[in-house]
Amino acid sequence: MTGKVYLVGAGPGDPELLTLKALRILREADVIFHDDLVSPEILRLVPPEVRVSSVGKRCGRKSVTQAEINSRMIAAAQQGLTVLRLKAGDPGIFGRGGEEIEALVDADVEFEIVPGVTSACAAAASAGISLTHRRSSSSVLFLTGHTSAARTENQWPELNSGGIPDAATLVIYMPGPDYAQLRDRLRAAGVKGDTPCLLVSSASTGSAGTHSATVDKLAELAITPAPNILLVGDVTRAAREAAGAALHQSVPWQQSPLEDRIRPLTV
Amino acid sequence: MTGKVYLVGAGPGDPELLTLKALRILREADVIFHDDLVSPEILRLVPPEVRVSSVGKRCGRKSVTQAEINSRMIAAAQQGLTVLRLKAGDPGIFGRGGEEIEALVDADVEFEIVPGVTSACAAAASAGISLTHRRSSSSVLFLTGHTSAARTENQWPELNSGGIPDAATLVIYMPGPDYAQLRDRLRAAGVKGDTPCLLVSSASTGSAGTHSATVDKLAELAITPAPNILLVGDVTRAAREAAGAALHQSVPWQQSPLEDRIRPLTV
Repeated sequence: MTGKVYLVGAGPGDPELLTLKALRILREADVIFHDDLVSPEILRLVPPEVRVSSVGKRCGRKSVTQAEINSRMIAAAQQGLTVLRLKAGDPGIFGRGGEEIEALVDADVEFEIVPGVTSACAAAASAGISLTHRRSSSSVLFLTGHTSAARTENQWPELNSGGIPDAATLVIYMPGPDYAQLRDRLRAAGVKGDTPCLLVSSASTGSAGTHSATVDKLAELAITPAPNILLVGDVTRAAREAAGAALHQSVPWQQSPLEDRIRPLTV
Repeated sequence: MTGKVYLVGAGPGDPELLTLKALRILREADVIFHDDLVSPEILRLVPPEVRVSSVGKRCGRKSVTQAEINSRMIAAAQQGLTVLRLKAGDPGIFGRGGEEIEALVDADVEFEIVPGVTSACAAAASAGISLTHRRSSSSVLFLTGHTSAARTENQWPELNSGGIPDAATLVIYMPGPDYAQLRDRLRAAGVKGDTPCLLVSSASTGSAGTHSATVDKLAELAITPAPNILLVGDVTRAAREAAGAALHQSVPWQQSPLEDRIRPLTV
């Protein structure tokens, strides 16, 4: 009997932004393969008997190849295990989920995708803003700024001048660290230099921070540890006032442990 | 002493896709204002002593105006109450969250945004696909197809020919019911007629369904009850094989009540 692979979004970092379903599977799984960006606070919720493997690839340092991740997931499922592939954010947005799904389909392994809170939504929430706005933003475009070994997916070949919708909020996942290059790519894609931007680091966590800029001044942004999200567009103007208010009101994880509030799940 | 307003995403419908934080606030709130699309299964988790008001606006039938929602939230907070403004999906994506935030800021009412699983991610998960793919989709564009009284925000004025990135997955929130018009708008925006599409209805719930089409054949789609998400782009090709597998594996809510597995939260 073969097992099953759950491709699960762990959300942006705050363990309270796990879904109930993610928490349930985290406690039912036999083995967990997780990305680097899944927070330690979330991994602390895993029961001690579960086998946990980090299979993160960070900033080009490939500790584990994608092929290896695929074959380890498949091998575990073929042993009859319940496998949790835990990804930061949502598994269907810039997480190589597509390639893992293909491998699972090819190997005829049963799988299920459990969506999570994607970092774009968490970044906007941390900054106290909405990604869309009836007056100023009628669409949202998710891009990735990451420039690692996998260059072909990161050249924005689709964004020639005029390729970015005028009234869109742009959300750039993995924007750093080369903000000068990012500025040039945005300008080349037709985004005006005075368009306001907001860099949100560690959204949803106790160390969340926001930094305002414009496209032309992106190179002046301080380098902050991953995860970062860069929001570009008029909606970010409101963040200057709202950020402080929203950022410091979350109950810090440390002061109100989730474990005290949630009973171990027995299904 | 004034209270506080929490703008909270309830996720796509499955109560297990609530975040832990959303569930906590749902149990701590004094009063809840929710949209029509928040599922009855989620509202059943609200303790009986909490005042619950539906403030939904559905398909142009405006039962409650936006100004009225704003003033009721503000009035409740000014009475010192903890107010939960519960929105389907994520509060920052096509939910009028921006206008509510402005009203709260103007009234000097403390607020916090709690992000949720947005319907795009749930639709892809229900269909067993990833919204991005290393080979075929390097960006995701969220649009709304809804054509209600509020016409100005729904004309895609930004999408002249060539305004849609070539390698993007398009996600159209509230696409129906006029799929012929949607086809024309997509074609006018430069999307090819043979681009594959996938309509996902009631993503994440027991009645989830997927329907494949191409842009040219959108008008042949059956009309399904809200909520619907239309995915447009090459990534949807994989859904034809994966959908059946992924769709029927969720534990139905009815068979495994959440209430049995989560202890009432005491903070």
